[in-house]
Amino acid sequence: MEKIAIYPGSFDPITNGHLDIIERGLNIFDKIIVAILCNPAKNPLFTVEERIDILKECFRDNHNIEIDSFGGLLVDYAAKKGAHAILRGMRAVSDFDYEFQLALMNRRLNRDVQTVFLMTGLRWIYISSSTVKEAARFGADIDELVPYIVNCKLKEKFGHSCK
Amino acid sequence: MEKIAIYPGSFDPITNGHLDIIERGLNIFDKIIVAILCNPAKNPLFTVEERIDILKECFRDNHNIEIDSFGGLLVDYAAKKGAHAILRGMRAVSDFDYEFQLALMNRRLNRDVQTVFLMTGLRWIYISSSTVKEAARFGADIDELVPYIVNCKLKEKFGHSCK
Amino acid sequence: MEKIAIYPGSFDPITNGHLDIIERGLNIFDKIIVAILCNPAKNPLFTVEERIDILKECFRDNHNIEIDSFGGLLVDYAAKKGAHAILRGMRAVSDFDYEFQLALMNRRLNRDVQTVFLMTGLRWIYISSSTVKEAARFGADIDELVPYIVNCKLKEKFGHSCK
Amino acid sequence: MEKIAIYPGSFDPITNGHLDIIERGLNIFDKIIVAILCNPAKNPLFTVEERIDILKECFRDNHNIEIDSFGGLLVDYAAKKGAHAILRGMRAVSDFDYEFQLALMNRRLNRDVQTVFLMTGLRWIYISSSTVKEAARFGADIDELVPYIVNCKLKEKFGHSCK
Amino acid sequence: MEKIAIYPGSFDPITNGHLDIIERGLNIFDKIIVAILCNPAKNPLFTVEERIDILKECFRDNHNIEIDSFGGLLVDYAAKKGAHAILRGMRAVSDFDYEFQLALMNRRLNRDVQTVFLMTGLRWIYISSSTVKEAARFGADIDELVPYIVNCKLKEKFGHSCK
Amino acid sequence: MEKIAIYPGSFDPITNGHLDIIERGLNIFDKIIVAILCNPAKNPLFTVEERIDILKECFRDNHNIEIDSFGGLLVDYAAKKGAHAILRGMRAVSDFDYEFQLALMNRRLNRDVQTVFLMTGLRWIYISSSTVKEAARFGADIDELVPYIVNCKLKEKFGHSCK
Repeated sequence: MEKIAIYPGSFDPITNGHLDIIERGLNIFDKIIVAILCNPAKNPLFTVEERIDILKECFRDNHNIEIDSFGGLLVDYAAKKGAHAILRGMRAVSDFDYEFQLALMNRRLNRDVQTVFLMTGLRWIYISSSTVKEAARFGADIDELVPYIVNCKLKEKFGHSCK
Repeated sequence: MEKIAIYPGSFDPITNGHLDIIERGLNIFDKIIVAILCNPAKNPLFTVEERIDILKECFRDNHNIEIDSFGGLLVDYAAKKGAHAILRGMRAVSDFDYEFQLALMNRRLNRDVQTVFLMTGLRWIYISSSTVKEAARFGADIDELVPYIVNCKLKEKFGHSCK
Repeated sequence: MEKIAIYPGSFDPITNGHLDIIERGLNIFDKIIVAILCNPAKNPLFTVEERIDILKECFRDNHNIEIDSFGGLLVDYAAKKGAHAILRGMRAVSDFDYEFQLALMNRRLNRDVQTVFLMTGLRWIYISSSTVKEAARFGADIDELVPYIVNCKLKEKFGHSCK
Repeated sequence: MEKIAIYPGSFDPITNGHLDIIERGLNIFDKIIVAILCNPAKNPLFTVEERIDILKECFRDNHNIEIDSFGGLLVDYAAKKGAHAILRGMRAVSDFDYEFQLALMNRRLNRDVQTVFLMTGLRWIYISSSTVKEAARFGADIDELVPYIVNCKLKEKFGHSCK
Repeated sequence: MEKIAIYPGSFDPITNGHLDIIERGLNIFDKIIVAILCNPAKNPLFTVEERIDILKECFRDNHNIEIDSFGGLLVDYAAKKGAHAILRGMRAVSDFDYEFQLALMNRRLNRDVQTVFLMTGLRWIYISSSTVKEAARFGADIDELVPYIVNCKLKEKFGHSCK
Repeated sequence: MEKIAIYPGSFDPITNGHLDIIERGLNIFDKIIVAILCNPAKNPLFTVEERIDILKECFRDNHNIEIDSFGGLLVDYAAKKGAHAILRGMRAVSDFDYEFQLALMNRRLNRDVQTVFLMTGLRWIYISSSTVKEAARFGADIDELVPYIVNCKLKEKFGHSCK
């Protein structure tokens, strides 16, 4: 049976930390669905469509990755996609409680979906979409922190030119 | 002397975790005042009046429970009500620092009011008003997580029908 | 019904932080049993008998305090003494997980005994029996951290003279 | 390719919390090797041989589980067994830092072995081999916390009779 | 070479906890630049100009303190001012992860600027600009928590009269 | 006035993480005294004399570093050496509470000595003397984690040959 995991997130934008988790996840799962959570309450930098385009560009040669977006309950989405696992990266202690609460709520709602945690690589341990955006806003050099396409898109958004 | 504790909170809405703390608290205190904090900055799902009605429904047969709402400083409210303790539930490490800061500030303002912490039962350890609301919004089955009246009110708010 | 709490610990020796919790506890409970845990595995500075003598000296004018020692399961001891609560002080986040594990295990063994947490006063937040012993060993001035009798006994143990 | 994970530990003794992680792990991996770490420095209650016998008894009908023991570096052992993952359960925040340090050291030593974290079920979140042993020592009823065989062996060790 | 540190923050308003860190910092550094971060996203109680005036009043006799404000990246600002260190106070565990993330991001952007952490004095460990503002809003007595000038300005804002 | 800091520790053995903190510290202080705590209770791998020799070898060309050992209270030792600061590295949240307790106790004993925390570089964030020793014991390659001299000494201790 094919082992499918959902990797949910905002990905606004995707960072090298996310890429690292996906790469590790492919050692465990046959297929990973990178799923953008459509959350109307948040005020994102990139639209869902822009984020889907960026993700498709990042993974265009990787046939084990599917790009998608979803609303509603994560466990319902997982069931619909035939996934039996939710993939999450953990970076630091402050992530832990939130992740636990989420995972326990999800398990209560659907016992057949496991939450699987992988550790973000040490180089990415304190990098997040927010810190990357803040640094990019002020013109800091972040090309080692995000994929090339994200670096360009961030420069575009903030009016700098892409190298 | 009658031992009275204030159990302050938003209760938007009350969950089984809150009920559990109140029930445990009644082993320690003679009377518990469940006090809704009126916080104009927040954007609640239920109005203060709706929340008072729900709480009154939940505790209508319990004569050791008083339902109330308050604004201003918690310690001033406690003094006015003749309470010598503030009751708080603790669920997880992430609660700890915030609770500590609050308790220390309150003690500095009024040394005669003790903050008393009880542990939420294991079944409720990762349940909060927010996760319950989010799950209910998408039609998830939460009847084991909240009192019957809350389950009905949430279904009403989100346009589902109450079983 | 008289409300009785057990305050268990090693008390090797008792510090002002412990005294502070006991004093706060007396605002909540009618009687507190300060109960020395007899743990043969540990290598204490003071014998159980010495610790009982010190505690009796500290609380000789306080008729709401009982001094005792116990072995075996805490919840069995609490039931035997007619106590419905276990009193614990919390100082810092690092205490939290251990206290939680203990409290949950105790609740599983006897559901009728509540664990009640009070906050140690800010002045005592980072004082423990161990740090007090280590400081006293090297002749540091700790008379503000422990009761007078403990200060004298520590000086005796470590060959300093009591002021 | 068969996906094999090592589940290392002391298992002195195995608890229902461990069983829960193994069961969840079998949803992700094709085979799990439950590997007892032979650590001469520790002073275990059960010998390695006794622990192997208990584990074999627990999993005798499960052909996806292998029971083994090892010394030396975990990553060397994993490589020798053809495993590409180390399975770990996480219960609480206090586990997190230690697990992280271990996982990062292991990754530095062998980049091809992933550490995969699963969450212990809520019922087992504050149960450990140590608390189980301590409760059993004083005759507490722990038959809901450990497999039947472990319950019997613990009663034997501590001179109680098995139900 | 003169050792200069930047002490960045919102200082909305400055509290005795901040003063304590600055005083300690002067034992380590020859000069400290207290730098108000201009963050248009936040909705402050005092304008940047008001905050600069308050800080100038607090430190008018101290020639080792410079008051300034800045926008953009902290490390760029530090480089411009010839500072080789960023001074941060730490109060509690919940500060830790955020501070770490910030410090690591800053180091990645400019390796020549060290982040130096000092511990807030125990008396100020749970005091923040937010709790001070909330207490002042309801007329609580906070004159021991903030400099005299801040106490007056807060009373002015909230329509109480300054003692 | 010359700014002197004590960097206390067991250094059994020194790792690249310690070197990293010392190097950062030299940006802040004029002189750092690396001081081995003589703790008879611990059972070290290297004797105090061996550790002094290793440290002298590591810092033989650095005239701002003094190597020493001490017993008794750290603050007394600091006063004797004319140091006004204690330098500590912080790696992870689990260090925080212990470090805080130590720093507060030290401050209470001598208010003129500041504890200054620097962040360990990300590469060393989960490396400690213990993990290094454990890895070396089993012949793992640790030459990137410790100075060359330590690598050789560890191989000697554990019967491997130095490259």
